[in-house]
Amino acid sequence: MKKIIDPKREIWSDILKRPTQSYSDIEPLVAEIFDDISEKGDVAVKRYIEKFDKASFDILQVDSSAIEQAKKSVSKELKDAIQLAKSNIEAFHASQKTVPVKIESTPGVVCWQEKRAIEKVGLYIPGGTAPLFSTILMLAVPAAIAGCEEVVMCTPTDAEGNVHPAVLYTADLCGIKKIYKAGGIQAIAAMTFGTESIPQVYKIFGPGNQYVTVAKQMAMKFGVGIDLPAGPSELLVFADESATASFMAADLLSQAEHGTDSQVILVCTSKDKLKEIEQEIMLQLENLPRKEIAVQAIENSKLIYCSDLERAIDLINAYAPEHLVISTSNTAKILTKIKNAGSVFVGDYSPESAGDYASGTNHTLPTNGFAKNYSGVNLDAFQKAVTFQEISKEGLLKIGKAIELMADAEGLFAHQNAVSLRLKEIKRESNN
Amino acid sequence: MKKIIDPKREIWSDILKRPTQSYSDIEPLVAEIFDDISEKGDVAVKRYIEKFDKASFDILQVDSSAIEQAKKSVSKELKDAIQLAKSNIEAFHASQKTVPVKIESTPGVVCWQEKRAIEKVGLYIPGGTAPLFSTILMLAVPAAIAGCEEVVMCTPTDAEGNVHPAVLYTADLCGIKKIYKAGGIQAIAAMTFGTESIPQVYKIFGPGNQYVTVAKQMAMKFGVGIDLPAGPSELLVFADESATASFMAADLLSQAEHGTDSQVILVCTSKDKLKEIEQEIMLQLENLPRKEIAVQAIENSKLIYCSDLERAIDLINAYAPEHLVISTSNTAKILTKIKNAGSVFVGDYSPESAGDYASGTNHTLPTNGFAKNYSGVNLDAFQKAVTFQEISKEGLLKIGKAIELMADAEGLFAHQNAVSLRLKEIKRESNN
Repeated sequence: MKKIIDPKREIWSDILKRPTQSYSDIEPLVAEIFDDISEKGDVAVKRYIEKFDKASFDILQVDSSAIEQAKKSVSKELKDAIQLAKSNIEAFHASQKTVPVKIESTPGVVCWQEKRAIEKVGLYIPGGTAPLFSTILMLAVPAAIAGCEEVVMCTPTDAEGNVHPAVLYTADLCGIKKIYKAGGIQAIAAMTFGTESIPQVYKIFGPGNQYVTVAKQMAMKFGVGIDLPAGPSELLVFADESATASFMAADLLSQAEHGTDSQVILVCTSKDKLKEIEQEIMLQLENLPRKEIAVQAIENSKLIYCSDLERAIDLINAYAPEHLVISTSNTAKILTKIKNAGSVFVGDYSPESAGDYASGTNHTLPTNGFAKNYSGVNLDAFQKAVTFQEISKEGLLKIGKAIELMADAEGLFAHQNAVSLRLKEIKRESNN
Repeated sequence: MKKIIDPKREIWSDILKRPTQSYSDIEPLVAEIFDDISEKGDVAVKRYIEKFDKASFDILQVDSSAIEQAKKSVSKELKDAIQLAKSNIEAFHASQKTVPVKIESTPGVVCWQEKRAIEKVGLYIPGGTAPLFSTILMLAVPAAIAGCEEVVMCTPTDAEGNVHPAVLYTADLCGIKKIYKAGGIQAIAAMTFGTESIPQVYKIFGPGNQYVTVAKQMAMKFGVGIDLPAGPSELLVFADESATASFMAADLLSQAEHGTDSQVILVCTSKDKLKEIEQEIMLQLENLPRKEIAVQAIENSKLIYCSDLERAIDLINAYAPEHLVISTSNTAKILTKIKNAGSVFVGDYSPESAGDYASGTNHTLPTNGFAKNYSGVNLDAFQKAVTFQEISKEGLLKIGKAIELMADAEGLFAHQNAVSLRLKEIKRESNN
C-alpha cells in the first residue's frame, strides 16, 4: 500500500487517478456480434453462447420446471435473508416516489411534470464466480415500483446450461417472467434488437465485465439507454482517531475482494489510526479466501494522511468515490460538505456490505468519478419525467407577445406565427 | 407530404423511422482536436477558432464592456419578454425541488437520499443563423436553482469576434460570469479538459450541429456527462375533428423551419380535418421567410389517418415524439395513456412555441425516440441523488445475519467478514 502524507492539491489528480482502461480493441468484436444478432436473431445468439460459454440448448427462455427446482434447492435461511433484503429495498425505493408537480406560471398557463415508467427494461445479471442474485433485487424491485410493463432478464449459464438456483429463485420472487439464458455481448445485443425469443428493451441495467461494458455502450448507439457507465468498484474510507480500525480495514478489504482492479482509498486525519488500520488490513488479508484478488487490489490502494479536515473533504469530493464510509467524531457536520459520492455509510456500524445487500439502498452506483455527475440507480432510473402544458386563451394573451418577440429575435418566424394566428383569433372572437 | 391511411402495426417502425445519421466520418477530426486541446490548451482553441470561425482574438473570455454594450443594444420590449420567460421558467423549475427522502427500513437502519448540485456545468450556446438566447434561460435558470457552483458558457462569435447582444444580455441576466467566445468542437474540448482560460466542467448541456454532437459524445469518454443524445427536432400533432386546422398547421410548420432534417408528423382521427390541415400547411408555407428549409422538412413529414383512437395512441407511444401537440375533444382521457413524449402541449391554445420560450417548461428535450427512456432537461439534470445510511448496533443485529448469508452465497467472504467482525464486537460488549 502506498502511504501519502498531506498531499498538495497539485498532485491530487495524480494520486487519485483510477487505473484507466481503454476497450477500443474489443469494439470490432462487439460490432460484429451486434450486426450478426440484429440480422439472424436467436440462431446467432445460440452460436455465440456455444462459442463463449461452451453451453448449448434449444430454448433460450428459462422454463418453469427449472424455477420450481431452484425454489427447492435454496435454503430456508437464505430465502429469509433475501426476503428481508427485498422488503428493505422495497421500502426505500417506494419512499422515492414523487407526486406530479403542477403550477400556474402565469394566470392561464398551467405547466406540470409527471413521471412515466420506462415501458421495457432489460436486466443483465452476470454469471461467473459469484452468482449476483443481490443485483436482481436492486434492479427488479425499483422496476416493479416504477411500473415498468415488461422486465426482461438475461444471465449466462454454466457449461451444463444451468443458472445458479439463487439467481432463479430471486428473479422469480421479484416477479420476473422473462428470464433468458444468455450472457455477455450476445445478451446485450439481443435486448438491443430483440430476437425471436428475447424482447427488445428501451433501457439496459446491470453490471458486467469489459465485454458487457462495451456492448452496453454499443447499445446506446442504437437508441437503448443504459443505467451507468461501468467501471471497477471503489471504496473510500474517511476515518479519524475515533474510528474502529478493524471495522475500517474490513470495509476496505470487502471492496478489494471484488476484483484485482478494484480501488480502495483511506483518508485519515490521525497518523496513529492510519497505521492501526494498515496493520489490521494486513492481518485480515491473511484469512480471506479471495486473498489473491484482494492483495492485487490493495497494491493499487492508497492510505492518505490529511492533517487538515477541510482539505480532506475537498480531496474526497475531488475523488468522488462510489462508496464512502465515514467514521469520525463530527460526522453530521462533514456530511453536509460531501458533494460527490455514490452512497455514503455513516459511522462504525454501517458496513459497506450492508448497502450491498440488505439495508435498502441501491448498490448500482457511479464509479470512476461519475459520482460528480451521475446518480446511482434509484426509482427515477426506471422512469422519465414528461412535461405538459395547457394554456387558456387568457394565458396566451398574457405570454403571447413575449413569445412573438423572442421568436422574432431568434429569426424563427413560423414559431412567431403559431402564436400570432391564435392571438388574432382570440381578438376576433372578443370583438364579436 | 406523404399521406398514410390506417397503417398496420407491422409497418409502423418503417413509417416512423427517423432520418438516421451516422457521424463516424467526423470522429477522427473530433478526436484530433480533443488531443490537441488537451495538450496545448488556449493556443489550440484559438487556432481552431481562426480556422473554423475565421475570427481571431487574444482573450477568450467576454469582457464586461461587451456585456455593457449588449445591455444597451437590446430593446426594452425584448428585455421585458426575456424577463417574463425567465420568471416562468424559474417558477416551474423551482417547483421541481424535492426534499430529502428518509426512512427507517428496519429499526436502527436509517436510509436517506439527498440531491446534490453538480458543481461545475458547461452550457453550449450555438451561433449561426439564430441567436439562441432562449436556450440560455432553459439551462442557466435550473443550474442556478440547483445551486451549481460554477457555470461556464461557450458560444461562437461572428467573423468580427462579436457575440449577439441578446445572447450576452441573457447570459448576464442569468448571472453567468464566465462567458467564452468559443464554439464547435473546440468549445466542447475546452470544457472537457479545461484550458488556461476555460474551466473544466463535469457536465455539458446544450444543442449544436453534428460536430458539437460528436464532440459531446467524445466528452463522455473523458468522464464528462452530457444532457441528452442530440438529434434533429421533431413534432407530432394529434388532432381530431375538434382541432383548429390553421393552429395545427402553424405548429407543424414552426417545427419544420428548424432545419431541413426536422421531422413533423400529423396523426388525425378525422379524414376531413387531415385534409384541412394539409391545405393550411400549403397556404401558410408560402409566407415563411425560412420557407426553403421548411419545404424540405415538410417533404420528410407524414400525415397519418387513424380510424381507431387506441391505435393512434399506440402509434404515438411507438414514435415517442420530442414535442406532442394534442388537440382533441377527449384530451384528459388521452393524456393518461401517453407514455412516451418529451413535452406535451394540450389544447388549441398551447402552441409548441410557448414551451420553446415562455410558458415555463424546458425546451431541451429528448429527440430521436429517446423520449422512451430519457427525461428532458429539468432541475434533476443539474443535480444527482446521493444515498446515505446510518446503522445502529441494534440495526446491525437485525440485518447482519441476512447480510452474512447473502455474502456467503455470493462467495464474497470479506463482505461477510465486515459484518461478522462488528456483530462479534456487539455481542462481546453486551456480554460485559
